[in-house]
Amino acid sequence: MKSNLELVNDCDQFPPNRDPSFLYRFMVNGFDCPFGYLLEATVNTFSWPDYWEINHDGKTVKLLGSSLEERNKQIHDTLLAERERGSFKILKGWTSEIFSVYGPQKDLVLSIPRIAAPLFGIVTYGVQLLAYQSDTSDGAIRIWIARRAKTKRTYPSMLDSTVGGSLPTGETPFECLIRESAEEASFPEELTRTKAKACGTVNYVCRTDERGGGELGLFTPEVQFTYEMELPKDVIPTPGDNEAEEITLMRVEQIKSALGKGEFTPANGCIVLDFFIRHGIINFENEKDYIEISSRLHRTHAFPTA
Amino acid sequence: MKSNLELVNDCDQFPPNRDPSFLYRFMVNGFDCPFGYLLEATVNTFSWPDYWEINHDGKTVKLLGSSLEERNKQIHDTLLAERERGSFKILKGWTSEIFSVYGPQKDLVLSIPRIAAPLFGIVTYGVQLLAYQSDTSDGAIRIWIARRAKTKRTYPSMLDSTVGGSLPTGETPFECLIRESAEEASFPEELTRTKAKACGTVNYVCRTDERGGGELGLFTPEVQFTYEMELPKDVIPTPGDNEAEEITLMRVEQIKSALGKGEFTPANGCIVLDFFIRHGIINFENEKDYIEISSRLHRTHAFPTA
Repeated sequence: MKSNLELVNDCDQFPPNRDPSFLYRFMVNGFDCPFGYLLEATVNTFSWPDYWEINHDGKTVKLLGSSLEERNKQIHDTLLAERERGSFKILKGWTSEIFSVYGPQKDLVLSIPRIAAPLFGIVTYGVQLLAYQSDTSDGAIRIWIARRAKTKRTYPSMLDSTVGGSLPTGETPFECLIRESAEEASFPEELTRTKAKACGTVNYVCRTDERGGGELGLFTPEVQFTYEMELPKDVIPTPGDNEAEEITLMRVEQIKSALGKGEFTPANGCIVLDFFIRHGIINFENEKDYIEISSRLHRTHAFPTA
Repeated sequence: MKSNLELVNDCDQFPPNRDPSFLYRFMVNGFDCPFGYLLEATVNTFSWPDYWEINHDGKTVKLLGSSLEERNKQIHDTLLAERERGSFKILKGWTSEIFSVYGPQKDLVLSIPRIAAPLFGIVTYGVQLLAYQSDTSDGAIRIWIARRAKTKRTYPSMLDSTVGGSLPTGETPFECLIRESAEEASFPEELTRTKAKACGTVNYVCRTDERGGGELGLFTPEVQFTYEMELPKDVIPTPGDNEAEEITLMRVEQIKSALGKGEFTPANGCIVLDFFIRHGIINFENEKDYIEISSRLHRTHAFPTA
């Protein structure tokens, strides 16, 4: 059985106290702060066009474009060329989705094809909802847990939040949640809009592994906007697309057991732990690593956020 | 009006990304990790007996005692001698209360008179409860907010959680909460035991200021165990000791206004912000610093915790 702290470590694989000096920092002309971390192997694989400045002593990779438009074109062209060359397995999954990178003043600094975010180690965003029932026969809370489809590219058949998804550029977290809740759990828009409650963020730095099907060890700092929604008894979540195989109402003890056996995806294990902490299911008296867990789930990132 | 991020900064005055290299680290023989931060002025004011090893180049202050008993006696004797000499204003408030310092394995490393904790910058612990009503006439949540007595040594007449207190050695957070809730708000033990719900921790590093009446700028890293309790309408909190002048039921808009005007103590402002985040009152769509605030409220400490 994995401990709860082990579950956090499975997801947040580069804790805030770890020395990042072996990594290259992703810099942008005109900004003092880094926007992500690159592995040395990544830096050496790219054929950097001359609008990049690579400093191997200072370990920086700097994009020189001076406007948003210029930077977007430069990064897009650079990645498209690498895709043609077949340099990175990860780029084979190219889609039209883009992620936005924000500056210290929350200004838009550049956009990057979603699939390439781990190469530069930029912060990405998602939404996660746990729908639950508390008016149960025994008065104990139960949570609707999704099982990922067998056909998912990442983490097939593992357990998930009721609803979850990555946040595309141009959508606010709450609107994204409403859309995803309709798509993934068939929740009427009005239900989510009136009943879902924001409850903070869960933050971590994952690293890509063999389950992702691309390069290994890339940094993926994430911010998950977490929500919860108490469901009336007559509302039954039903998978509305091909993301989930089923969504079932689980008791706390069943969920704890599934967590311990590693049946949740690393990120969704943390989403559940955060719910357990907010609801007093995990507390100082029953969890020896309580302070570390409740703090680590909300760790700060080394880069600006939205 | 103070912004919510300014309220966080008022309380967490030494954020995790700040360089601590100007500070002396408090070390203990046999342990690799520091247990607190001391100011250079503090280090130079002490007359260190020979069971201390002071390293000005490496900026460490090391207690050499090899057992818990030895260390407790050494630190007690050292502080008592300074109190006799009148070296530190802060030591005038000496009480019998002691705080415990824990190691990386959560083992007890030493105990220190409570009043002296800021001199060594060790982590201290507290409990905070917000009692609220949600079955109000307009369906909006209201929170019972205490006003500190005019006679309090620190932050007189400012606003506070419903119940709060520091955690003495030997008491678990939940038992401490039950005791404080009876003392400060006249809540029956059974009510708190069955209705109060743990919801995580709020962490910050305050620095002492003129309102504390002692030395200035000392580091006080704290972990607050947070609780909430939905109260039935017929339960009215009543100040049971001399800590609070009154406890009143406030609407969210009233509380927001009081926060903006700086009427809450810095720590309790953060406790309220954390409640607002957990309950979706503050969210990404209405708070530009949402991600930073929800992460900073749970910042990690540089030292081991209980």
